[in-house]
Amino acid sequence: MPLTKDEINLMIKTAIETEKNAFLFKSKHAFGSAVLTTDGNIYGGCNIDGVISSQGSCAEVVALNNAVANGKYNIKAILVIDENEFVFPCGSCLQYLGQFFQTTNIDIEVVAAKVNGECKVKKLSQLLPTLYLSSSFDFKLKKYRNKK
Amino acid sequence: MPLTKDEINLMIKTAIETEKNAFLFKSKHAFGSAVLTTDGNIYGGCNIDGVISSQGSCAEVVALNNAVANGKYNIKAILVIDENEFVFPCGSCLQYLGQFFQTTNIDIEVVAAKVNGECKVKKLSQLLPTLYLSSSFDFKLKKYRNKK
Amino acid sequence: MPLTKDEINLMIKTAIETEKNAFLFKSKHAFGSAVLTTDGNIYGGCNIDGVISSQGSCAEVVALNNAVANGKYNIKAILVIDENEFVFPCGSCLQYLGQFFQTTNIDIEVVAAKVNGECKVKKLSQLLPTLYLSSSFDFKLKKYRNKK
Amino acid sequence: MPLTKDEINLMIKTAIETEKNAFLFKSKHAFGSAVLTTDGNIYGGCNIDGVISSQGSCAEVVALNNAVANGKYNIKAILVIDENEFVFPCGSCLQYLGQFFQTTNIDIEVVAAKVNGECKVKKLSQLLPTLYLSSSFDFKLKKYRNKK
Repeated sequence: MPLTKDEINLMIKTAIETEKNAFLFKSKHAFGSAVLTTDGNIYGGCNIDGVISSQGSCAEVVALNNAVANGKYNIKAILVIDENEFVFPCGSCLQYLGQFFQTTNIDIEVVAAKVNGECKVKKLSQLLPTLYLSSSFDFKLKKYRNKK
Repeated sequence: MPLTKDEINLMIKTAIETEKNAFLFKSKHAFGSAVLTTDGNIYGGCNIDGVISSQGSCAEVVALNNAVANGKYNIKAILVIDENEFVFPCGSCLQYLGQFFQTTNIDIEVVAAKVNGECKVKKLSQLLPTLYLSSSFDFKLKKYRNKK
Repeated sequence: MPLTKDEINLMIKTAIETEKNAFLFKSKHAFGSAVLTTDGNIYGGCNIDGVISSQGSCAEVVALNNAVANGKYNIKAILVIDENEFVFPCGSCLQYLGQFFQTTNIDIEVVAAKVNGECKVKKLSQLLPTLYLSSSFDFKLKKYRNKK
Repeated sequence: MPLTKDEINLMIKTAIETEKNAFLFKSKHAFGSAVLTTDGNIYGGCNIDGVISSQGSCAEVVALNNAVANGKYNIKAILVIDENEFVFPCGSCLQYLGQFFQTTNIDIEVVAAKVNGECKVKKLSQLLPTLYLSSSFDFKLKKYRNKK
């Protein structure tokens, strides 16, 4: 089922709310993100800096991990919000998204949204055409598909 | 205020529940974690593997990021649960905890618990005596202290 | 200047040699990588697992960090070697490559090679069309351009 | 065999040289590091920022990965250099060091040095008494012990 405007609006609302909690002391820029699962749940994330330069997190990863910690792996869409620009997830976040794609076989919809509601929608497969898939973990990843 | 047995029991409950959602296809071992904020909120986390070897997360980081995404930075305690062993957070998680210590100046209590309720409690300063602090971001980190 | 067959062959040689040193106790698959700088230096990398699930490294990152530790930031090309398949760098590595693109403005050539010498060549901009660039660090990144 | 003053001086020299190549656009502080293997080789590292907040590297990790890419896993000592302060590796680096400890069973010497040659030496086991060890990968880690 294609992503509806209502679903996008709910994601924007969550992303805007979560963005306020961004924990930033290095980055200049707060980001908010939201993921939508195939069963209609929405989970938010914000970016979080790390004192140690390998320990920060993008908003998208925080949102995805929030879904997982709630037992949800069936990701239908992910959204990133920005004030004035259309920003798609970075390559690292796209790759991380890919493991949920590999779990469910759903080509995840990726939304770049502005606070005013405007948005651009692409598929994960368009944004990262050479997504690295792990054949060695394929079977184990797919076990999560029917878990909840 | 010292950590109470009731607080520990609530954290154990959250950690056990969240551990069930661990997303594992490389690791052999599910972990659950819970953080307690100074105003009494509890947030859970589980470990999450990554297809790409830099993209996994420890349960403690997921729990801490869950607190941050909910606007909470005042971490009083963190707990890790394991079936049969007392497991303290790894060095990477202890360092990550350190940035919340640097925000609040509270020497965070770190609890290694078993599912039967037994536990060992240490302070972050005991577990990582040479915690790396960032003087260059000190001011910005402390701004979060009075935020919520 | 386009990448020559000689340059690719030198990169393949380095990647094959470095791949032997892969430090793997979780992953099933050794990877070797090599980067070529605009002044003709080649640096190798292999993948390195981490006991902690966020602490592993892809071969490409190890090769790039090897170049940086030797004071080289002008990346012309990167290669990944595999036995029987054409494997391009994962999204996370492509994003990491992007900061060297942002430093030099050179659209880096990305080579997927097999041990028998066959290869496919793409540009970074084809593999990650929505590469995340940091305007806030743009000036500082460009300082490295003329450094060596 | 205990660490000699000559070994420390050679490590300081490498760390100072490599520190000059630090790639920094977020961090305010350049670090240099050097590792010494049991067979007398020294490998350097510098810190490297990432545009994406999870993609930076500490100098110690770069130095360790440099050793690994050269086929060396038997780490005897690691050193971090700073201008005016004694800085020990952060918790994340100490944990990462731990996997080489688990490979070789050598309690790694950790040196905090100043550019003037003054230094403090501790053991990994003192700095991270609750180092997380992976029993599930223990066997595979130990295979590297006799490799070179």
